Amino acid sequence: MADYEILKTIKSPQDVKDLSFFAINKLCEEMRSAIINRVSKIGGHLGPNLGVVELATALHYVFDAPKDKIVWDVSHQSYPHKMLTGRAEAFYDDKKFASYSGYTAPTESVYDLFMVGHTSTSISLAAGLAKARDLKGENYNVIAIIGDGSLSGGEAFEGLDNVADFASNFIVIVNDNEMSIAENYGGLYGNLAELRRTQGKAKDNYFKALGFDYTYVEEGNDVTKLITELLKVKDSVRPVVLHVHTLKGKGYKFAEENKESFHWTMPFDVETGKLKSEFNALTYAQVVSDYLERRVQQDDKLMVVNAATPGALGLQDFRANHPENYFDVGIAEEHAIAFLSGMAKSGLKPIGLFFGGFIQRAYDQISQDLCLNKSPAIMVIEGTGISSMDATHLGVFDMALLGSIPNLVCLAPTCAEETTRMLDWAFQQKDFPIVIRTPADLPQELTYLPQKEIVLNQSEIVKQGTKIAILGLGNFLKLAEDVAALLQEQGINATIINPRFYNMLDKDMLSSLLEKHHTVITLEDGILDGGYGQKVCEFYAASKMKVYSFGAKKEFTDRDNKEDILKRCKLTAQQIVDEVLA
Amino acid sequence: MADYEILKTIKSPQDVKDLSFFAINKLCEEMRSAIINRVSKIGGHLGPNLGVVELATALHYVFDAPKDKIVWDVSHQSYPHKMLTGRAEAFYDDKKFASYSGYTAPTESVYDLFMVGHTSTSISLAAGLAKARDLKGENYNVIAIIGDGSLSGGEAFEGLDNVADFASNFIVIVNDNEMSIAENYGGLYGNLAELRRTQGKAKDNYFKALGFDYTYVEEGNDVTKLITELLKVKDSVRPVVLHVHTLKGKGYKFAEENKESFHWTMPFDVETGKLKSEFNALTYAQVVSDYLERRVQQDDKLMVVNAATPGALGLQDFRANHPENYFDVGIAEEHAIAFLSGMAKSGLKPIGLFFGGFIQRAYDQISQDLCLNKSPAIMVIEGTGISSMDATHLGVFDMALLGSIPNLVCLAPTCAEETTRMLDWAFQQKDFPIVIRTPADLPQELTYLPQKEIVLNQSEIVKQGTKIAILGLGNFLKLAEDVAALLQEQGINATIINPRFYNMLDKDMLSSLLEKHHTVITLEDGILDGGYGQKVCEFYAASKMKVYSFGAKKEFTDRDNKEDILKRCKLTAQQIVDEVLA
Repeated sequence: MADYEILKTIKSPQDVKDLSFFAINKLCEEMRSAIINRVSKIGGHLGPNLGVVELATALHYVFDAPKDKIVWDVSHQSYPHKMLTGRAEAFYDDKKFASYSGYTAPTESVYDLFMVGHTSTSISLAAGLAKARDLKGENYNVIAIIGDGSLSGGEAFEGLDNVADFASNFIVIVNDNEMSIAENYGGLYGNLAELRRTQGKAKDNYFKALGFDYTYVEEGNDVTKLITELLKVKDSVRPVVLHVHTLKGKGYKFAEENKESFHWTMPFDVETGKLKSEFNALTYAQVVSDYLERRVQQDDKLMVVNAATPGALGLQDFRANHPENYFDVGIAEEHAIAFLSGMAKSGLKPIGLFFGGFIQRAYDQISQDLCLNKSPAIMVIEGTGISSMDATHLGVFDMALLGSIPNLVCLAPTCAEETTRMLDWAFQQKDFPIVIRTPADLPQELTYLPQKEIVLNQSEIVKQGTKIAILGLGNFLKLAEDVAALLQEQGINATIINPRFYNMLDKDMLSSLLEKHHTVITLEDGILDGGYGQKVCEFYAASKMKVYSFGAKKEFTDRDNKEDILKRCKLTAQQIVDEVLA
Repeated sequence: MADYEILKTIKSPQDVKDLSFFAINKLCEEMRSAIINRVSKIGGHLGPNLGVVELATALHYVFDAPKDKIVWDVSHQSYPHKMLTGRAEAFYDDKKFASYSGYTAPTESVYDLFMVGHTSTSISLAAGLAKARDLKGENYNVIAIIGDGSLSGGEAFEGLDNVADFASNFIVIVNDNEMSIAENYGGLYGNLAELRRTQGKAKDNYFKALGFDYTYVEEGNDVTKLITELLKVKDSVRPVVLHVHTLKGKGYKFAEENKESFHWTMPFDVETGKLKSEFNALTYAQVVSDYLERRVQQDDKLMVVNAATPGALGLQDFRANHPENYFDVGIAEEHAIAFLSGMAKSGLKPIGLFFGGFIQRAYDQISQDLCLNKSPAIMVIEGTGISSMDATHLGVFDMALLGSIPNLVCLAPTCAEETTRMLDWAFQQKDFPIVIRTPADLPQELTYLPQKEIVLNQSEIVKQGTKIAILGLGNFLKLAEDVAALLQEQGINATIINPRFYNMLDKDMLSSLLEKHHTVITLEDGILDGGYGQKVCEFYAASKMKVYSFGAKKEFTDRDNKEDILKRCKLTAQQIVDEVLA
């Protein structure tokens, strides 16, 4: 049991500067214990944080934050930084865990400049800080820390390309732990490997080619060495890259040995490295990956594409079993979409799997490369819907986002069986790109199970009633059932409809409702603004039909309790019935 | 006057292969004349096409399209390719101009693999073709041609990084004419310059660092030399970059001398290089740039950012007069947005100017880097609305796209005066990012001129009436006036409202309408799906108010006549009145 003797004395980076070198090394060990303490109990990013304990400490020792500006890319390696900037209790004090997020958050500390959770943005954000500094004639260091994995994202290149031209201080720390979330893919990683092998002396250097001064630091977990090297680049008057070789998971045996599964982990037993509760319920990710496993048996032209998140998408087995049919593009969603389009145009039936909030990184490519060209690729967007996730990882915006793109066909399955049926249907289509949106929630047990075969833009009436019709999109078909049950108690036999397609309207069905219904309720597990319900409202806007649309508010929730969000959005069955009957 | 003697005999690339070297050189001269013939008469991309006449010819001489796959990035340099693949008449025969687009179009030819008009996608699209080829066990060359300017876009890096790992044929032709649309910016361009200076022998090579084989060709407008070099890389069994140095505007004196204004040009006089009709009417671009010119006089902390389109945005004078306050990030919209966020966080009031259809390239950054962080930057989105533009350059999707992002405030000015007033207001705000959307149409003369000062989320009733209220968003306030005039003929004194804010509702105003109005009409110059009108429909959906929403259909129009589109969308005043009174 660590005593956190030194860590507890650290209230700001100034306290680090006052430590002896011996004490700093002990502080690093305490920070490591504190990280393991938090993550083993509530889950979170483990490997990335263990790897940068010394780097964060050296940074705060050498630089003078908050005057000097430190920007952490994606910020899932920001725990040590948080500990050194007055928030150590979030890690050693179990009662304080929930008070602090796992990402940088300006609301928590002046040492956090941006709230970030999507990769590859640190250089561009810091570029703005540096340009503002220069324009205002101010004088301080601007430092962007970016992992090797994040360098595969296009925005990181755009940022590097731009700041390399700056005629002033700009320090890029490349935290090279030889890993993305999973393994790295791409030619850049050959260059990084060659730079590591040659101690920075490779013939062709990616960073020097772009115009940076460059230094390689092999001892990236040696705080003394890091301090020495950081002192050399401090106050640099031009752009410089410090390429630091760190060990992901450093100091915790199981994380060092299994870097991918300890990148982000659920709570685990520290002694054994085993997850505290094995997760055995069937997830949508598993429904999809099981389907792909079956399908690839019959079709060796199947190609599965993902952008660096095989774990979150349940693709580890598929990757191991079918390396020829699996392609991880790295953190590069834009490339992934255009790549899918190219394969689809060549007669393959490629399928891209993406984690909910990240599909928005490729809107332009979905519009131009895919939909304008009507390339019949399939995209599965997983982990969507209202959740208690961080503000950077919300899955509620995708339907509104994709709903306005021509030529795209978007489906929302209501249960595991329908997911499979929709995948079957999607693989048969040759004329348009398709999105299938699966929820973060577990597959639900429905009273009125959708049965009808999938036909383009046809919804399904799962229960015929009168007066009130409830359109329960995707995961919210269950909520529609709950609403119907409450209405039944009031003597109303409501109709329940599974819309199935969320970016288009089944106008025949909607028109037919006018005959025996006076009210329509729409329910969607995504934001209302720009979503499915508003399309239905417009359809009926000049008619007598009253429409009540329910969905998420247009807001960035941030680790809010899911039930609280649902209540705030009036998304409980009782609230819905109360409002409609009022 | 060129006789196009050889060009007229070219019906397919096979006809090029049968020519003598002497004839090929004459063909190139004829193609050059044909390009100038078309562009001088109807406008289009001049410099990029003149620069690649020999490259396109050599490609079709050496490779066997359509078996070999040739993908042109952004495709505004595809005229020579089009001429060699059966479409020469589009250039030498004035009567056939309109039958062919200025971009690659699979509907025109099997030699065109994708419809493209946004940059930096060719490598990713071609990567999909190559992977499909390998998976199917087929055998042919895959070639992506990309300009030096397009290399600044992140997707191009993502593509390069990924294909560098391929263990099979992949040929990237870098068409280096030392120019983006305007001048190039960024560290990569230092490397390209060094590669040109050293004939490809620079110490650090961007492409070799990523893992490509690499050859430099200085004589990029010498068809014989190009054929020789292309033959060497043909059937390469691994990824290779051929870096070709070409002259933008080659062969037309004025285009060689003024590369930026002849990148894309309106019709011009071939003898003098002067535009045939000087465009003197006040544009929205000019309204905005005049404003910035005035503002920078009082505020030297103003920073104008754009992504490689200063010409289309009328920023040439500002760039020349205020180099310290002007920043062109290259074709890198993602970086541009994060960069704006960084500057805004540092207390500057940066303003980014973007061309309508391109803002969608940075949705994730607008959401995460800007809006999640509430960075008070301003974005002006120009050239929006229904138009007769190419399918790749439409300006109708931005409102639906941005309308679902929290913390963002989006305005649509109705005229020049209001644009200025909105800019004044935007520069005073410190709490949120702001979008101002200006139309492609000229500023309009309104009968009922908006006068009220701008207040967050307050619309303005410009004419008070009863029974029917018309909400004319932005440029469509004029259409609202026209509709009101027709209604007046029917004895209805309609209310006319300028909503001003398009991603939020002025609920007080909307509620107040319930008192004396039974019908609301919404008009927006963008797609209806996910837009402003549907928000209004939802607001009234459970009330007695009838709502009629008019806007663009969810479709990719492609050089359609604008009046035809308006009619198809029922966006003429008479159609609107007919539908509402029916």
